[in-house]
Amino acid sequence: MLGRLNHVAIAVPDIAAATATYRDTLGAEVSQAVPQPDHGVTTVFINLPNTKIELLEPYGENSPIARFLERNPDGGIHHICYEVDDIIAARDKLIADGARVLGSGEPKIGAHGKPVLFLHPKDFCGTLVELEQA
Amino acid sequence: MLGRLNHVAIAVPDIAAATATYRDTLGAEVSQAVPQPDHGVTTVFINLPNTKIELLEPYGENSPIARFLERNPDGGIHHICYEVDDIIAARDKLIADGARVLGSGEPKIGAHGKPVLFLHPKDFCGTLVELEQA
Repeated sequence: MLGRLNHVAIAVPDIAAATATYRDTLGAEVSQAVPQPDHGVTTVFINLPNTKIELLEPYGENSPIARFLERNPDGGIHHICYEVDDIIAARDKLIADGARVLGSGEPKIGAHGKPVLFLHPKDFCGTLVELEQA
Repeated sequence: MLGRLNHVAIAVPDIAAATATYRDTLGAEVSQAVPQPDHGVTTVFINLPNTKIELLEPYGENSPIARFLERNPDGGIHHICYEVDDIIAARDKLIADGARVLGSGEPKIGAHGKPVLFLHPKDFCGTLVELEQA
C-alpha cells in the first residue's frame, strides 16, 4: 500500500528565515513562498533529489499548526506524507485494521491539489501521517 | 550541498509493534531488527520506493533516544538525515555560517557504516539534522 515518501513537513515560526537556512546554509533548492488561505499555512518546498521538505508557517487565524508552534516555538517536524495509489481503498483497509482517520474520514483536497487524509498519531508511532493519492 | 533525504528516523518504545504497524497496517516492506550496541539503538528499516524510514528502539543503558522517549512515550520523529558528497567540506561551511555541529565536530561512523555528523536543532528549524556522507 505505502508508496513514495511525498514530503516531510516542518512547521516553522518564520518561513523567510527557515527558507534562508535551507537555501544559504544548507545549499538546497527552494521554491517561492505560497500563501494557502484554505489550509491556514504558507508553504515553501525544499526540493531534494528524491523527495521534498515542506516548510509551513501559520497563515491567518486558527492555523492548524498554531498549537504545534506554541508547544515547539523553534519549529519542528509536523508530519510525514506517504503516497498511496488509491486513497479510498487505503482508508478502508486502515479503518478495518482499527486505525483512526482524523476528521470526517472523507479525503480533502490538500495543498498539492490531490486527495489527502490524516491518520491519528497514536496509531502510528507518535507521528502524524498524511496519505496523499499519488 | 544538500543531497538526497537518506532517511527519516522515528523513535519508538516497541520496535516489534512499530514494525508490525508499518508491515501489516500500512503494507510496507520492512527489514529485520538489528541491534546496534555501538549506537545504543535497535534499528528496522522501512523501505519506500524513494527513501527509508528508520525505526529506532533504545538498546541498553544510556541510549541516545531514551530521553526523547521519556518526553514522547508514544514515539515520534527523532531526526532527518540528508546526504552530502563531502562531509568535511559541509561541516566547515556550516561552522563558517555560524551553525553548531554536535559533539566533537569530527564525523563518526554511523549505523550505516558511513561518516555522519549531527547539527543543533535550534539552528535548523527545531529539527535534529544528521548529515551522512553519500
